[in-house]
Amino acid sequence: MIDSSRPNPLRDPRDRRLPRIAGPSVLVLFGVTGDLATKKLLPAVYDLANRGLLPPGFALVGYARRDWENQDFAQVVHDAVKAHARTPFSEEVWQQLLHGIRFVPGAFDDDEAFENLRSTLAELDESRGTGGNHAYYLSIPPRWFETVVGQLRKHGLAETRGEQWNRVIIEKPFGHDLESARELNRVVSSVFPSSSVFRIDHYLGKETVQNMLALRFANQLFDPIWNNHYIDQVQITMAEDIGIGGRAGYYDGIGAARDVIQNHLLQLLALTAMEEPTSFDAKQLRTEKQKVLAAARPPHDIDLHTARGRYAAGWAGGEKVNGYVDEPGISPDSMTETYAAIRVDIDNRRWAGVPFYLRAGKRLARRVTEVALGFKRAPHLPFDNTETAELGSNALVMRIQPDEGVTMRFGAKVPGTQMEIRQVNMDFAYGESFTESSPEAYERLILDVLLGDPPLFPQHEEVELSWKILDPILQHWENSGVPPQDYASGSWGPRTADEMLARDGFTWRRP
Amino acid sequence: MIDSSRPNPLRDPRDRRLPRIAGPSVLVLFGVTGDLATKKLLPAVYDLANRGLLPPGFALVGYARRDWENQDFAQVVHDAVKAHARTPFSEEVWQQLLHGIRFVPGAFDDDEAFENLRSTLAELDESRGTGGNHAYYLSIPPRWFETVVGQLRKHGLAETRGEQWNRVIIEKPFGHDLESARELNRVVSSVFPSSSVFRIDHYLGKETVQNMLALRFANQLFDPIWNNHYIDQVQITMAEDIGIGGRAGYYDGIGAARDVIQNHLLQLLALTAMEEPTSFDAKQLRTEKQKVLAAARPPHDIDLHTARGRYAAGWAGGEKVNGYVDEPGISPDSMTETYAAIRVDIDNRRWAGVPFYLRAGKRLARRVTEVALGFKRAPHLPFDNTETAELGSNALVMRIQPDEGVTMRFGAKVPGTQMEIRQVNMDFAYGESFTESSPEAYERLILDVLLGDPPLFPQHEEVELSWKILDPILQHWENSGVPPQDYASGSWGPRTADEMLARDGFTWRRP
Repeated sequence: MIDSSRPNPLRDPRDRRLPRIAGPSVLVLFGVTGDLATKKLLPAVYDLANRGLLPPGFALVGYARRDWENQDFAQVVHDAVKAHARTPFSEEVWQQLLHGIRFVPGAFDDDEAFENLRSTLAELDESRGTGGNHAYYLSIPPRWFETVVGQLRKHGLAETRGEQWNRVIIEKPFGHDLESARELNRVVSSVFPSSSVFRIDHYLGKETVQNMLALRFANQLFDPIWNNHYIDQVQITMAEDIGIGGRAGYYDGIGAARDVIQNHLLQLLALTAMEEPTSFDAKQLRTEKQKVLAAARPPHDIDLHTARGRYAAGWAGGEKVNGYVDEPGISPDSMTETYAAIRVDIDNRRWAGVPFYLRAGKRLARRVTEVALGFKRAPHLPFDNTETAELGSNALVMRIQPDEGVTMRFGAKVPGTQMEIRQVNMDFAYGESFTESSPEAYERLILDVLLGDPPLFPQHEEVELSWKILDPILQHWENSGVPPQDYASGSWGPRTADEMLARDGFTWRRP
Repeated sequence: MIDSSRPNPLRDPRDRRLPRIAGPSVLVLFGVTGDLATKKLLPAVYDLANRGLLPPGFALVGYARRDWENQDFAQVVHDAVKAHARTPFSEEVWQQLLHGIRFVPGAFDDDEAFENLRSTLAELDESRGTGGNHAYYLSIPPRWFETVVGQLRKHGLAETRGEQWNRVIIEKPFGHDLESARELNRVVSSVFPSSSVFRIDHYLGKETVQNMLALRFANQLFDPIWNNHYIDQVQITMAEDIGIGGRAGYYDGIGAARDVIQNHLLQLLALTAMEEPTSFDAKQLRTEKQKVLAAARPPHDIDLHTARGRYAAGWAGGEKVNGYVDEPGISPDSMTETYAAIRVDIDNRRWAGVPFYLRAGKRLARRVTEVALGFKRAPHLPFDNTETAELGSNALVMRIQPDEGVTMRFGAKVPGTQMEIRQVNMDFAYGESFTESSPEAYERLILDVLLGDPPLFPQHEEVELSWKILDPILQHWENSGVPPQDYASGSWGPRTADEMLARDGFTWRRP
């Protein structure tokens, strides 16, 4: 399916198709015992090394409250790599990585441990030539952020001298509302300048999300119809088929809107709706994303244009499953939603009148993340018998996961009839068209941090704008005192969500 | 792939999705011994009967210079059906058809035979209830048209009384230039009113050609980009991988331009380029096709913007094959082209500046008919490293045969790189998306004749407009005295064709 008739010659030393290799540096990982570290971060470091994108002098330091020696942590890394790395295991690559692995035991408020960390880094800077370049990855609960960044400053680990750099990486949630997000930002930015703070929204590291930009801006086909002349609604969906699993402690009190709409879905909205940036330079890209997020607003009538639900007991994947309030660790009077749908309107020339519907939920019918542009019906049909209203409408669907690709839904003639039109799909599957396998989002993002390449990281301004959209909705829900509506596990969410769209004359996709 | 979420209820007795069944009538076939009758026409009659689209009283009369009885012709029909019908053989359907089969032996100028035909039809009108409704299918060399229509008039077979109808069906070539096309029309229209003349261009009976209309006018996605703001060239290709076979007598002196560009390719051009008709009523559709053909013009400089070739000896499909001039029955000094490419410009607001390239050839690399819209490159790329010029351009390809469907070619991000774009294909395959199998073009067209439903038949005006485009080119080629340029069998045509496009900054697709 790939056309290689026009080879792209390498022509410029700045050419981004040349591999971008990180300079000598240390990645310090706080929270090495968590699931994310085991399944994603440690394997991603190995995969980057295996792809030759880390320098020989690269070093990895783990920090945790464990009574481990360097070799114990090395074993943890080794096991994680063996179990979860994307690329094949190479003993040679592993040995090189192994020489740069260190472990520092200690609590987050332990001064002695931080002194230990300081001397470990100094030793590495000397022995591995990492030259004072440190990235601190805080894969830890947000309540510890202030303590850790404080310790980094206190022990001289955040200071920059000359060419060297110190960067901090934080994971969502970036606060739980506008107020707390601002406080978090105050804490972090009191130690690190904003150019040194890398907020991970791992969706932005996904190939298919970046492909949205390619689709929109590298083609002549799509831009002309990418506006309210032709599009009448956009649906952005992140559906999970699983429940909260063992994450009650994290999830309860957070809920679907804070967990994924505030970050992933509003970022997808921004990439879908933004104007073309002059370049993909971080500044330009952020400017456009911020412009469109600033133009986006929550619905005037929140009761009519949002919906909340929580999964009820039932069957999922052939197994009997608990309802949300019966999950271990969840209080029976929890008000947390496991499904949220909101309407967002964008007050600008391109999108006025086009509702963006965002929905996220757990224990839904299937796992799928997609952005679907729904097109207006053809304004006139020359076929004398088929009414326009019967036709269904065209859609352009960017499939983020799984089964990454693009689908175009359009009307074709049913064979054998005079002129009956039925909607069919035209498909592009990422996996079928490229022999290159897609790097994990974390590979891309960790590499970008080490390179200091910021376009794929949202800045505080975007986080704040997202909370401004969500805050009134969350407050309204909280003030209502009504619990989220139950929906059957394995369904597509609560009835109120269907009613919310029906009011606008639309229906949710069943992807 | 089919969305059946919006069932199309039957709602109107005029609904075209109800089967359209022909009324009682007789199909008289002149030229029953030819290849077309055996492989296409007789099987199509059976398939229509098998689909329940012919009435019980339907009758089929063969006319040819053979010493046959009815049962001999019936055996010919039976063998053709067994060998070539699309639908399964049913003894019951066959027996019903068999009762209405007659044969009339005779030459085309044989008065006695035409009297015999008249009494045969009178008998059928009585015994089968066909009520004087006769369709005369002239599957014979055009030089006999005048004789046969003259005989039909002379023997009272073309006269219409009350509700009854007589229709005549003629096959291409409709003349070999403008002058002879007008003469042919004069001959036929002196006997049959134009509403009773059905010119078969079997391409128009193809499902995928009709789907071009569905694609353009039943969707909101495509119309906005269907113009010279976004399209920079259109390529209409009909490539055959075979040579002329045993058809030297027909082909020599005709050539690729007259054989298929004048009819099939200019009809495809008309359907691609025309404005939306108010309805698919025959009159409206013809009006739009005629408008666009009238706006189409041959190139000013015919040497620069057309190309001719003929296949040279070589290998095709693993076999040694003759060059055209060495084929049996072809004179060594033949000037007939087996490959023709022409540029057509359309002088209207939608298409000004967009060249339409039409090419047709035999012994090319593969068998394919398609219409490909080539899009301009994206006007600006925010990616700092990939130059627009390297990108390749988007295309929307309507695949007519084989492998019927639609392909969209667009740029996607190559996984793992920062932002390298490569052209990929998004596909819709007719055969995969519909369980309904496509009727043969001749089924549709014969049924339309019996129903008197004319939208898919070009009128004389369209034929004349097509010759007006082609005549100056054919005359220029003839006057040049230069033979067509040789091209290797199995290649994509002569070098001059490549140069012709290169001059305009394009290249031919290699579909």
